[in-house]
Amino acid sequence: MPMTVPGQHMAAEIAEQPTVLAGLVARRTGIANVAEVIARRPPRFALLAARGSSDHAALYAKYLIEVLLGLPAGLVSPSTVTLYGARPDLRDVLLISVSQSGGSPDLLEFTETAREQGALTVAVTNTPSSPLHKAAELAVDIGAGVEQAVAATKTYSATLLALYLLIDAVRGGDGAEAAELGALAQEALAVPVRHAVDRYRFVDRIITTGRGYSYATALESALKLAETSYLAARAYSGADLLHGPVAAVDEGTAVLAVTGAGRGGQAMHDVLDAVAERGADVLALGSSSADVPAAVRIPVPAVAEELAPVLEVLPVQNLALGLALARGGDPDRPRGLRKVTKTR
Amino acid sequence: MPMTVPGQHMAAEIAEQPTVLAGLVARRTGIANVAEVIARRPPRFALLAARGSSDHAALYAKYLIEVLLGLPAGLVSPSTVTLYGARPDLRDVLLISVSQSGGSPDLLEFTETAREQGALTVAVTNTPSSPLHKAAELAVDIGAGVEQAVAATKTYSATLLALYLLIDAVRGGDGAEAAELGALAQEALAVPVRHAVDRYRFVDRIITTGRGYSYATALESALKLAETSYLAARAYSGADLLHGPVAAVDEGTAVLAVTGAGRGGQAMHDVLDAVAERGADVLALGSSSADVPAAVRIPVPAVAEELAPVLEVLPVQNLALGLALARGGDPDRPRGLRKVTKTR
Repeated sequence: MPMTVPGQHMAAEIAEQPTVLAGLVARRTGIANVAEVIARRPPRFALLAARGSSDHAALYAKYLIEVLLGLPAGLVSPSTVTLYGARPDLRDVLLISVSQSGGSPDLLEFTETAREQGALTVAVTNTPSSPLHKAAELAVDIGAGVEQAVAATKTYSATLLALYLLIDAVRGGDGAEAAELGALAQEALAVPVRHAVDRYRFVDRIITTGRGYSYATALESALKLAETSYLAARAYSGADLLHGPVAAVDEGTAVLAVTGAGRGGQAMHDVLDAVAERGADVLALGSSSADVPAAVRIPVPAVAEELAPVLEVLPVQNLALGLALARGGDPDRPRGLRKVTKTR
Repeated sequence: MPMTVPGQHMAAEIAEQPTVLAGLVARRTGIANVAEVIARRPPRFALLAARGSSDHAALYAKYLIEVLLGLPAGLVSPSTVTLYGARPDLRDVLLISVSQSGGSPDLLEFTETAREQGALTVAVTNTPSSPLHKAAELAVDIGAGVEQAVAATKTYSATLLALYLLIDAVRGGDGAEAAELGALAQEALAVPVRHAVDRYRFVDRIITTGRGYSYATALESALKLAETSYLAARAYSGADLLHGPVAAVDEGTAVLAVTGAGRGGQAMHDVLDAVAERGADVLALGSSSADVPAAVRIPVPAVAEELAPVLEVLPVQNLALGLALARGGDPDRPRGLRKVTKTR
């Protein structure tokens, strides 16, 4: 039996991302073809269905749809259909179902029902042979290759980029802002995280926070740290954190704050002041991390704000891997992660 | 200066809930008048805007709207409008803005913009003199009286009930299922929680989980425990918990699982099996708590599943208060809670 090195799959898949992202950019005309069908049948509302990491990608897409397309959008609660039998009127609705495996039974059932109820359905998956990919009227293959690691890394960043390219193309864009993402991803992965691994090796409790597009980064960071290193990690939008839970922040709390160069990052300054005042240990992540008070900084290459989440998550994946290994775990063999949700 | 007893405001307001809820039921024809306007201008899509505890009430309403009205619905990310200047097309959209104080600047700005963009706007607040209440075309006063405690209790349960009565009336209901809620709330508040306070006095980390309507209860429970007792509390829908984060559950994890008698509670059985297998310490809360394996049970009076969240949260408030006091805190003076979010 071949030797296995802890975290080898996760490390390998993290390293593939520059190639995967550059590949998606190169295939963007294929995605634009799907976008053209959507643009010809313009929806009035958008829904997004997903679970786990894909749910964070869906939230990112919700911001893109609301801001770039000017459409109201919502995240689906599949149980309204699968448990309670709801049959909503979905004419003029665009449903985007996001799932790496394309195998979640509840997303499949929701997507089939939505199509019957009149929605224009689009699946965004990494598995063109999957039931979900086939059940939707339109489909985008993120083309990240087989994901062997249990913690999603390359499929998360590729899903974000695929959603960006799709939505940008619906508004008539040519994806130009994304042209350099492969090279920028290489840079982002080269950002050292060892000092952060050393500092947070013994932390048990971490709050992650971001605003706007980068709220998705905060959510994904909390999930990645929780599922690989068993940290009690919880994400809040910067606005929600100030509304109440900042009460639980003190000298014993680590706060990962996403601070990019755009409007979301600007709006984080109040949040950073509040957590600094309470003595929290702040890890600033993002293209503006140098501009805020923090104990540890992880810079991220600058890019259009809408695309920043694609790059921001990369050093966080390295951090999650490093922390898991430092704490004696094997992120490829977490204690209870399932690759496909079987819930209904 | 008068003596203050720790938690006196929170305790007093918890105790007011049977009266507040009965009062709302008695005023349900006023709410039905608002519903009639909505029914005459039937929306095709619903949006809900809220922060903090009100956001959990909004999620509850999202399930009600999807299941009872058959409309797709989504929770608003106010920053798309307030930070990024989005101006979505909101014709045929019903926007329900939920805020105890009615004073959150970002909800106000979102509501004003939504009204300009064609939405039918409804404010659900506890403050009829507030800017939000006045900015919306229609408004529902939850009538819970001044809330002095920093942690929302009576305004949360009253908001849930007001939203139920509103949505039930839109579909032509007469609120009959809610008739006994005042008396049932009295019963729910009499359920002892001392054994749970004793057991979780030293816990640092708790996961809360529920499905369907009661996912809102899981979210509100985590927030209440985090903001009054500084626990690292995190909520997952039962489906999402199984998808990944169950990896972080072990013998050192307390899990508060909402297990009511309806379909959401039924769907929790898989989740309970998975966490029990990992040795978690389970606190079962709800009308079916006697039917599941658990270390501690907090029963809740039976009621229609759609209304269960109004009752489920009541013993959790007693638990949060009891834990805060046992741990030497004063839930009326948490370390950093603001009553009104000032974020934009």
